Amino acid sequence: MFLAEIIGVGSELIYGDTLDTNTSDIAVSLLPYALEVKRTLRVADDIPELVTNIREAWGRSRLVVLSGGLGPTADDVTREAIAEALGEPLELDQTVLDAIEAFFKSRGRVMAEVNRKQAMKIPSAAWLANPRGTAPGWWVHKDGKDLVALPGPPAEWKPMWQELLPKLALPPAYYYQKTFKTFGIGESDIAQAIGELFKREKGLEVGSYAKPSGVEVVIRGHNPAAPALAEAIRKRLKNVWGEDDDTLPQVVLRKLEARGATLATLESLTGGMLGSLITEVPGASKVYLGGMVAYSALAKARFGVPEAILEAYGTVSEAAARAMAEAAREVLGSTHALATTGVAGPDALEGKPVGTVHIGLAGPGETKVFSYHLPVVSRQTLRQRTAYVALGLLVRELG
Amino acid sequence: MFLAEIIGVGSELIYGDTLDTNTSDIAVSLLPYALEVKRTLRVADDIPELVTNIREAWGRSRLVVLSGGLGPTADDVTREAIAEALGEPLELDQTVLDAIEAFFKSRGRVMAEVNRKQAMKIPSAAWLANPRGTAPGWWVHKDGKDLVALPGPPAEWKPMWQELLPKLALPPAYYYQKTFKTFGIGESDIAQAIGELFKREKGLEVGSYAKPSGVEVVIRGHNPAAPALAEAIRKRLKNVWGEDDDTLPQVVLRKLEARGATLATLESLTGGMLGSLITEVPGASKVYLGGMVAYSALAKARFGVPEAILEAYGTVSEAAARAMAEAAREVLGSTHALATTGVAGPDALEGKPVGTVHIGLAGPGETKVFSYHLPVVSRQTLRQRTAYVALGLLVRELG
Repeated sequence: MFLAEIIGVGSELIYGDTLDTNTSDIAVSLLPYALEVKRTLRVADDIPELVTNIREAWGRSRLVVLSGGLGPTADDVTREAIAEALGEPLELDQTVLDAIEAFFKSRGRVMAEVNRKQAMKIPSAAWLANPRGTAPGWWVHKDGKDLVALPGPPAEWKPMWQELLPKLALPPAYYYQKTFKTFGIGESDIAQAIGELFKREKGLEVGSYAKPSGVEVVIRGHNPAAPALAEAIRKRLKNVWGEDDDTLPQVVLRKLEARGATLATLESLTGGMLGSLITEVPGASKVYLGGMVAYSALAKARFGVPEAILEAYGTVSEAAARAMAEAAREVLGSTHALATTGVAGPDALEGKPVGTVHIGLAGPGETKVFSYHLPVVSRQTLRQRTAYVALGLLVRELG
Repeated sequence: MFLAEIIGVGSELIYGDTLDTNTSDIAVSLLPYALEVKRTLRVADDIPELVTNIREAWGRSRLVVLSGGLGPTADDVTREAIAEALGEPLELDQTVLDAIEAFFKSRGRVMAEVNRKQAMKIPSAAWLANPRGTAPGWWVHKDGKDLVALPGPPAEWKPMWQELLPKLALPPAYYYQKTFKTFGIGESDIAQAIGELFKREKGLEVGSYAKPSGVEVVIRGHNPAAPALAEAIRKRLKNVWGEDDDTLPQVVLRKLEARGATLATLESLTGGMLGSLITEVPGASKVYLGGMVAYSALAKARFGVPEAILEAYGTVSEAAARAMAEAAREVLGSTHALATTGVAGPDALEGKPVGTVHIGLAGPGETKVFSYHLPVVSRQTLRQRTAYVALGLLVRELG
């Protein structure tokens, strides 16, 4: 295996002002090749530091990818640093300068003098056109190795990279990845179920990750034994609701549509998040009729939740969750409905502690209520967890 | 200035299975000290690679912080790598082993043999207690420098780090940071408004970042001239709705509460996201009465949107947005209401292209409608952008 090194350029990546997802997206795109990514770096807009890191990476790797720092301002120094690291001069390319000027003109603006440096490159670099921005990239093929410099914005670099990848003639490798998505079981339950198949060896790796939608088990590697291992693990797992790119809202909608059912929601605790998750899916309107957010007693009454129940049991209660789910089904005339109520904090409510959650699930026949005391990490996490648990319960109910 | 180096350990960080926010959170926590973070690393669970990187960091830095890789399984190799890099043996600490066994016992479980390695440390390391997990950290103070190993989960490492930081006796430094949050203007407008004050020099840095809630301008640095620069920039900026940790939903609720007003929502395009954003704020129920998600014509009718208007103008229209906002105000009896309708894609709707957005804003007096053609990056981005624009419009309206 050869090495590939990925460097994100920019102080804003170090401090998280911009979340660095570019280096991991590039790492994932290299999985089908016989290249190992042993580390990724985020380096400040600092020429000496960049030069040191580029030299080190170039010295040991088959491929070096730099992301960012190709803009027009004084802090965009990726070009200068590559030139110095590779010991080549920066030269102006008049054709590219004309193209950048044309880009501005087409948007009714005049190119600023600072943009001039975006038309500079070293002799061994080829240009990578960037139709979506002013910063063209560089591709250096030298000594049987490649160095690529891409702009930072994903909408710009992703199409450029996709077009370039096949041209790099990287050594291909067998690669397999399978993700199983579960609901309602913890990481330790999963470790116990998988037992000795939970392995991590050269070219074959099993991992479990706790996500808001439940624990995911990932099997991946360059080892041809991976699919058989995945199949064996699949047999030991319970509560698998999806694989790979499936999302819980997608699966809910697919299952409802398959049986000609429809859905409504009435949210208190989750305040609209459940509706928002469901409507992320294109075509959700075929199944999801709509919902209500009842953040006041007045709204609950308005949406048909009997006041007598709220007075007798409180708004955070099993009875309230049941009445809310039934009201949602009633108001919108759906076959199914979900309702959430609980205490998101920071303070207790009606004497019930933060983390108390009741979820009502109304079907065509009966209505069920599920009650939890969820761990309190933050208000937002609790609400998110509740929304996904509601979706998970519905998937389980639909079988 | 001395150097600080931050290393996130784990292949899952390289591939983004776990989003690495630890290294940037740690970098931010070091800003009040005279330490420079010139790069951050994410390194695979690979002992030789980790050893190389720890040695290099330790050789040139005043402080090295490692995050993750302290768990009990075979792929948790941070301890082994530090021991090798620093040339020290790993030794079992019986007291810590007893404590880990007690931790499991207190949760009604028996410690597995694999957890034994969490009680190993090198002679020069001191233990960092981890009351929220089984993985204690390490603090090595040696040759006037510090190396710290923290567990990966934020809920575990953050309190440990907060307690440790003052004990490290790091050289303090003056540090200033101010963020201005704007609405309705682009990055280039801002660059023009700030003009020559948009600088980036040693110890003083101005940056602009496009966020879903609008463009943010950040002024920061170790230079004592920073506050005066921030003040000068503030005077040139228009449409500033908040500073630093302010969020748009918070500001909306604060302004509404100050005038004794209340809010309702009726969402089509955003499907509940607007309600979800508003109810992220603790105490939202004082102002936000509730909302409706009308994802079907049936729901819109049910919530009081006149069918005649939808038939005459379509559900994606100025007239629909106006009728929706007024219906929301009516149904819940609020003083103000927001409504969203539009085309999120992937396909056009009623002959209107993806990116078409209408936002209705009903106040006690009149109702206004704002129409946009937003750039289409993804369905989710468009919906998010719409929700924040709706909140921004309300803030502007409230003055």
